Amino acid sequence: MNLELPKSEHPRVLVIGGGFGGIELAKKLRNKPFQVVMLDRHNYHTFQPLLYQVSTGGLEPDSIAFPLRKIFKGQENFVFRVTEVQEIIPEANKVITDIGEISYDYLVMATGSTTNYFGQKEIEANAMPMKTIPEALNLRSLILQNLEKSLIENNKVVYDTLLNFVVVGGGPTGVETAGALSELKRHVLKNDYPELDLNKVNIYLIEGSPELLGAMSPQAQKKAKDFLVEMGVTVLTESRVLSYDGSTLKLADGQSIPTSTVIWSAGVMGELIPGFAAASIVRGNRLKVNAYNAVEGYTNVFAIGDIAAMITEETPLGLPGVAPAAIQQGKHLAKNLYNRVSNRALEPFKYFDKGSMATVGRNKAVVDLHKIRFQGVFAWFAWMFVHLMTLVGFRNKVVVFVNWVWNYFSYDRGTRLIIREYEKRPKEPEPTQTIL
Amino acid sequence: MNLELPKSEHPRVLVIGGGFGGIELAKKLRNKPFQVVMLDRHNYHTFQPLLYQVSTGGLEPDSIAFPLRKIFKGQENFVFRVTEVQEIIPEANKVITDIGEISYDYLVMATGSTTNYFGQKEIEANAMPMKTIPEALNLRSLILQNLEKSLIENNKVVYDTLLNFVVVGGGPTGVETAGALSELKRHVLKNDYPELDLNKVNIYLIEGSPELLGAMSPQAQKKAKDFLVEMGVTVLTESRVLSYDGSTLKLADGQSIPTSTVIWSAGVMGELIPGFAAASIVRGNRLKVNAYNAVEGYTNVFAIGDIAAMITEETPLGLPGVAPAAIQQGKHLAKNLYNRVSNRALEPFKYFDKGSMATVGRNKAVVDLHKIRFQGVFAWFAWMFVHLMTLVGFRNKVVVFVNWVWNYFSYDRGTRLIIREYEKRPKEPEPTQTIL
Repeated sequence: MNLELPKSEHPRVLVIGGGFGGIELAKKLRNKPFQVVMLDRHNYHTFQPLLYQVSTGGLEPDSIAFPLRKIFKGQENFVFRVTEVQEIIPEANKVITDIGEISYDYLVMATGSTTNYFGQKEIEANAMPMKTIPEALNLRSLILQNLEKSLIENNKVVYDTLLNFVVVGGGPTGVETAGALSELKRHVLKNDYPELDLNKVNIYLIEGSPELLGAMSPQAQKKAKDFLVEMGVTVLTESRVLSYDGSTLKLADGQSIPTSTVIWSAGVMGELIPGFAAASIVRGNRLKVNAYNAVEGYTNVFAIGDIAAMITEETPLGLPGVAPAAIQQGKHLAKNLYNRVSNRALEPFKYFDKGSMATVGRNKAVVDLHKIRFQGVFAWFAWMFVHLMTLVGFRNKVVVFVNWVWNYFSYDRGTRLIIREYEKRPKEPEPTQTIL
Repeated sequence: MNLELPKSEHPRVLVIGGGFGGIELAKKLRNKPFQVVMLDRHNYHTFQPLLYQVSTGGLEPDSIAFPLRKIFKGQENFVFRVTEVQEIIPEANKVITDIGEISYDYLVMATGSTTNYFGQKEIEANAMPMKTIPEALNLRSLILQNLEKSLIENNKVVYDTLLNFVVVGGGPTGVETAGALSELKRHVLKNDYPELDLNKVNIYLIEGSPELLGAMSPQAQKKAKDFLVEMGVTVLTESRVLSYDGSTLKLADGQSIPTSTVIWSAGVMGELIPGFAAASIVRGNRLKVNAYNAVEGYTNVFAIGDIAAMITEETPLGLPGVAPAAIQQGKHLAKNLYNRVSNRALEPFKYFDKGSMATVGRNKAVVDLHKIRFQGVFAWFAWMFVHLMTLVGFRNKVVVFVNWVWNYFSYDRGTRLIIREYEKRPKEPEPTQTIL
């Protein structure tokens, strides 16, 4: 059954996903001769770079989420529906969703990425992902519940599993999470849990390759590792996880770590929706796109952001899965869609690499801006500034800023709350359905 | 099995509940010759007077919650455990909890109150309570999900149920919630849902007695009602709910309202724990206490706040269930416990009534300070000032203040997020248990 949507005389651009790429594209189509229909399973945009601060009690979840409807307030050609898309039928120019079928003239896949366990089912069943707000809140509950449980635990083995925290994956998310856990331990736990022996609380960061922050400069890699070690994190590089059954993490070198908290930030893959020809799908569940972001094999289907693999000679693996790439592609595609309906020539996409950065702790960050590289206090302020500016919504910026100032001067993490009990997989909002 | 707690040479005061009364008492026992053990099912204190702003998207939940451990940072005689108390055994001076048995020298019941459905099972099964943060978040999800669903609903009857919002109970919570819903409708929905016919969105406030705000002055009652009517709320007084099956609310006068959202703020009762003699329990599931807050029939068991019924000639129904009463009793009982172990005379409790206030909307509140009564803008600022001052935690005060300023100037409600799907009863954190 077709879903009833407001009528429009203009061609319909159907955007799946309200992440960085999707919202940039939809914004840029304002006052253009299109009807923009956006679908997302949430009614809000998530600022993923700060999810780790929600998990570790530094920020309230609501300050990194922004209502999607509010972003497009007053945009007359914009229609939004909360739903999950089940299948794409490109040959019929339509998608099937939980609330009905929706046809399109142009389809934009902006679905982002999801956690990649590389097929390891046991790890998937027991480790904690951190890609959505419910997942981050779930992790926050688990960490705090484990601390509470440790106070009443008499079994020494179980006690250790409660107080060992393992982060797998040494990319920016893994580094930032391990650093935040270390600060939680050193600044908050000693006050909150005077009964607890802090020497028993251990934080591990496990990375398969020889260096952390693989995409950054050797200086940044070294400095990040030094920072972490200084902060008491056990950094294990060239270390591979063999298995994790929920209580023991086994490494390829024979080591094993008793732990009930494994945070999995070792990889992502495209959040693919069924229906695409096999030839258009490449490594990491991504859609192969050309320089105009058109998906291989299709003329009116596009992909932007993490789900898109724009493979060129300079970028044989595609572009990095970061917000600037998604934003630039969203902006560019909006322009090309308008060029197309105006019968003007399309322009190929050119990625402008803004550099990269990661924060480890207070006064401790690393920044690579091409040839300019710096680490430490100034890098940390730069990191905070860039993140505040990118955060969607003025209210959110103010609330995050207040928290950061507060945390800086008080050494505190104010939102260490177990609002809902930890569940292995948090329940996501169900797609909107008719009650009939 | 006894729960192991840190050793102490001093008598143990066991406080059940980290609400206004419990935290005031425990704070005042700092540096006194007691071991203070506090139990709560949450690891945070909830600022209940602002829960309705969480439900209606005006405040983030984390800004009205405060970690209990943090309140008592550095208080050496304080021990905290997250757990639910199952039974009190006064004759053995101990309580049974999910994590083991705990003995006491003095027991303080500070468990507060819970929603009272007056035995109406069908209403309990279908209406929404709003006494805890998970409940308030659940209500927020329901309200927003209903709006999203209405956009894809073709059945006219179901459509009406989604857009009729009914608040039952005309006390401060009911008045404040109805007012907040009206502001959400008038200031947010018209921007967020341009497709929606706002005339179809109706807000009802139902009260059994002839006046709203029964405990306040006739001026305040009249003005609150005028404010609500002006804001488009349908106020039905002398109106009794007969039944609610989840889709139709039936009133005693024969009227019926199709609605899938009924917010039940019609009554509270004490959050009683089994184990007390029947003679000590009075109307509304409360514990009868004397002027020293000792529970009738016991010499070392006390009750403060909403769970306590201090019945005197002037207050035949007990004291009102408000924060100042709980705080004053907590402070007073701490003093009397110290008097008792110091062999000094106990002092009877005297309630200092600070007056009462309720807010209806922006620039619209009512305040009764004994003989001084005022309504409108100044009352509204007074209401905000008093609530900000009572809110626990400086970070929370700042975040709430930022939100209020933001909401005032933008007419916005920034946290309209469906983070977790609505469930009839939100899952509460489970008490901490050993894994063994």
